[in-house]
Amino acid sequence: MAEILDALYGTIESRKGADPKESYTAKLFDRGIAKIAQKTGEEAVETVIAAVGQDREAVVAESADLLYHLLVLWAARDVRPDDVAAELTRRHGVSGLEEKKKRAD
Amino acid sequence: MAEILDALYGTIESRKGADPKESYTAKLFDRGIAKIAQKTGEEAVETVIAAVGQDREAVVAESADLLYHLLVLWAARDVRPDDVAAELTRRHGVSGLEEKKKRAD
Amino acid sequence: MAEILDALYGTIESRKGADPKESYTAKLFDRGIAKIAQKTGEEAVETVIAAVGQDREAVVAESADLLYHLLVLWAARDVRPDDVAAELTRRHGVSGLEEKKKRAD
Amino acid sequence: MAEILDALYGTIESRKGADPKESYTAKLFDRGIAKIAQKTGEEAVETVIAAVGQDREAVVAESADLLYHLLVLWAARDVRPDDVAAELTRRHGVSGLEEKKKRAD
Repeated sequence: MAEILDALYGTIESRKGADPKESYTAKLFDRGIAKIAQKTGEEAVETVIAAVGQDREAVVAESADLLYHLLVLWAARDVRPDDVAAELTRRHGVSGLEEKKKRAD
Repeated sequence: MAEILDALYGTIESRKGADPKESYTAKLFDRGIAKIAQKTGEEAVETVIAAVGQDREAVVAESADLLYHLLVLWAARDVRPDDVAAELTRRHGVSGLEEKKKRAD
Repeated sequence: MAEILDALYGTIESRKGADPKESYTAKLFDRGIAKIAQKTGEEAVETVIAAVGQDREAVVAESADLLYHLLVLWAARDVRPDDVAAELTRRHGVSGLEEKKKRAD
Repeated sequence: MAEILDALYGTIESRKGADPKESYTAKLFDRGIAKIAQKTGEEAVETVIAAVGQDREAVVAESADLLYHLLVLWAARDVRPDDVAAELTRRHGVSGLEEKKKRAD
């Protein structure tokens, strides 16, 4: 997963206020939080169905859709990836740093 | 966000086959894909509601829950974070590398 | 389906303002629309998973949960079953009356 | 609400095996359970967002969409409205008959 989420978030942020006709992301921002939340929920439903239906390739494709819309949702609510990363680290007691050390063992 | 998802995925993978009594993740694997999918869907619903309800802190907390369960879902279906990262890169034409270069500009 | 939804809606309505300790429905009203919406969404996810997983009995059980929480959601937003029935009739061009006539044919 | 769901279910059942080009319902059956489940889940998400967003008219419209797709889901899994009605009656101890008596009081 590496840096793609941070990079994509940066791209998404840069679309705020852009012309809705020129970019799908800008169009989402323009339509507002209810529409962004709806798309995020829909992609989650599709991911869940793909997983239960044992369709591995669809899980990959729908998860990508879900993560993209989740990043747009975060941007719309001024949540940064690092905010969620900090919460994950706090809950699960694992940090990229610790993992790196473990890999080096 | 960079390394936490990969690190957490590694931890989750290591729980496969562990005693369900000792770990929530092992318990999820033990209960099977329908239960894992259900939890993922539920956390997505909570994230969506937090976003529409303008509760920024809840968006962070629910998103962390959503990502954790999504990682368990991937592990249960043998999807690796890099598979989804590759799909995101393919669709959105942005790589961690390009972003790094942009930051260096 | 007959009259159960209308009857159950009446019961639910009567729980508004009741002691949250005495009734699950009263507790839901007490916790507010975000919680009611969350439960409704969760039951929808479980219904969907049951359907894809080919578990007919679970479809019945989860659908009952979904409809109950949907009725609570309607009550919380002052939507009456007849409002939704009117919308269904408008869209799908079928009324209970027509159906009755058809049955009598 | 009384008769519309039963009537609409009858109409939906009659579309099984019909030409997918002539009817949206027939098209849904043709695309299969995963697609029907997806649409049901999506309409649930929209209903939830409408409720949290305090949009009463949207709650009515999205609930109608949700119920229609739920009926198609039932038909695809050979669940009849009366099966779900029986489950609701069993759980909530209220029958149309009892309710009628109460109204007559």
